[in-house]
Amino acid sequence: MSAIRVLVTGGTFDKEYDELAGRLFFQDTHVPEMLRLGRCRLDVAVRTVMMVDSLEMTDADRETVLENCRRSPEDRIVVTHGTDTMVETARVLASAPLSKTIVLTGAMVPYAFGSSDGLFNLGSALSFAQALPHGVYVAMNGRCFPWDNVRKNRKLGVFEPERA
Amino acid sequence: MSAIRVLVTGGTFDKEYDELAGRLFFQDTHVPEMLRLGRCRLDVAVRTVMMVDSLEMTDADRETVLENCRRSPEDRIVVTHGTDTMVETARVLASAPLSKTIVLTGAMVPYAFGSSDGLFNLGSALSFAQALPHGVYVAMNGRCFPWDNVRKNRKLGVFEPERA
Amino acid sequence: MSAIRVLVTGGTFDKEYDELAGRLFFQDTHVPEMLRLGRCRLDVAVRTVMMVDSLEMTDADRETVLENCRRSPEDRIVVTHGTDTMVETARVLASAPLSKTIVLTGAMVPYAFGSSDGLFNLGSALSFAQALPHGVYVAMNGRCFPWDNVRKNRKLGVFEPERA
Amino acid sequence: MSAIRVLVTGGTFDKEYDELAGRLFFQDTHVPEMLRLGRCRLDVAVRTVMMVDSLEMTDADRETVLENCRRSPEDRIVVTHGTDTMVETARVLASAPLSKTIVLTGAMVPYAFGSSDGLFNLGSALSFAQALPHGVYVAMNGRCFPWDNVRKNRKLGVFEPERA
Repeated sequence: MSAIRVLVTGGTFDKEYDELAGRLFFQDTHVPEMLRLGRCRLDVAVRTVMMVDSLEMTDADRETVLENCRRSPEDRIVVTHGTDTMVETARVLASAPLSKTIVLTGAMVPYAFGSSDGLFNLGSALSFAQALPHGVYVAMNGRCFPWDNVRKNRKLGVFEPERA
Repeated sequence: MSAIRVLVTGGTFDKEYDELAGRLFFQDTHVPEMLRLGRCRLDVAVRTVMMVDSLEMTDADRETVLENCRRSPEDRIVVTHGTDTMVETARVLASAPLSKTIVLTGAMVPYAFGSSDGLFNLGSALSFAQALPHGVYVAMNGRCFPWDNVRKNRKLGVFEPERA
Repeated sequence: MSAIRVLVTGGTFDKEYDELAGRLFFQDTHVPEMLRLGRCRLDVAVRTVMMVDSLEMTDADRETVLENCRRSPEDRIVVTHGTDTMVETARVLASAPLSKTIVLTGAMVPYAFGSSDGLFNLGSALSFAQALPHGVYVAMNGRCFPWDNVRKNRKLGVFEPERA
Repeated sequence: MSAIRVLVTGGTFDKEYDELAGRLFFQDTHVPEMLRLGRCRLDVAVRTVMMVDSLEMTDADRETVLENCRRSPEDRIVVTHGTDTMVETARVLASAPLSKTIVLTGAMVPYAFGSSDGLFNLGSALSFAQALPHGVYVAMNGRCFPWDNVRKNRKLGVFEPERA
């Protein structure tokens, strides 16, 4: 069993409800709890790199994610990320390039909601990270796309190939 | 996007609580609901082959599952299955052999329970089914094993390699 | 079994997550689904009066709620309401006054979140509505307060008596 | 705020899923977790008296429950109980008689299942326990019955009055 690194950057995945203010916010990541729920038997090391809405992610933030990928001793990496700029970060990670398999994933609905796709996506991303050759990918809702042929269709809330 | 076939056979995955009798039983499969929750964007065709506890699965039942794998037009197949005899069925499916990627999966806790690993496992199995070469595999709790090197450790409730 | 009227006005109770916009919003009320989950055997008639954040509720809105209480043939009424101005609406309803038992309730966390107090509060409010004499009350988190001795402690997110 | 005693006796309410054996069993009670989820602000003291299926509850067990009601310093008591013999235990508790308000409640579906009515019933029972005069009651699914006019309709899984 080869070890996998999970790098947490925030995104919808990890949004929580603030009871006092009545709005969504970031606190700690839910990834460890999700791994427990999935009774995940992989050797996973989780590291919270940042906790941001991906619309607010800067170029410097993306460099930080890349730097974390570079420094990870594991060559299988899952990055949890907001969906809005996931493709942009994938492009930065692919530009390096690293001899690693890097899979970005996220959720359309926060994990803290009963109706979240997060657990499904996390199981999927960890699996693609093990099975695919080195490269950078986006795994969402059962599908997996290479970084250079994917876009988020904002009207439908769906990831799709950029070219047919 | 290549189509995937999901063959449902029951198992813990699909157990429900009978309010009147106060015990677990099988009704309809939860797989379509789980695919909706995961907002799965794959072209998945679900077929309920049987609804049984895998401890009660007979040789004839296993032949039926194999026959369903053989007849599926899709060459990517996920079989949901009780954990107790999942390895046994994998062996039967591998004996054929078919030019298909077949991934067996299940759950340690029924999907209807809040604490189920089912959604995580389903996301994982659908991903391995897409990424792995033809063959028969068992995917549970993040890991994926070839059919001929896996066993269920009943004391720990964990799937593990048979040989180191 | 005497019939009970539930008047829905929105509030945290009924907030949902908008997958496309990534924020909370109102759609349909969850009250009928909650009554099903609670397997409620009362004769309950649900009416959505409005769907608003209680911070945006106007005097005219409060008059509309009062008018709905007045016109309800049932003399046992539960009003679901945002917590921020629940006490203010209670005061308006008490000013009438009607020969009815009116219980306002809500939730600190949206029902759509796994961690919501909504189902507990709804069970509580329906019970106080049956058991208490005519008057206007606020029922939150197990406690029930008469309308003229309750306030929301915004710092703690707790309802408490105004006077000891 | 008057204190309330919760006496736990087991029942469907507290059944859990045993991952290794694949069946329902009793472990610890979920009542404290449920009170946290309901953000219950009452002064509640929880005591686990026993953890049994109510079909296996003996006369001696019922005496133990009665003795616990008698010795509780609180005069407002909620007893969580399996639904099958809830009415029988209510009769024993009423025979004492004590100058207390005692409300028996339970669930049609275990709390550990996503689809449980437990949280709704607990919120309801705690409310009736505060609002009703001394006596013994059964509170299920929004309704509350005096101990001497209630039965479980086993065919429908519903509590109903014995006489119209």
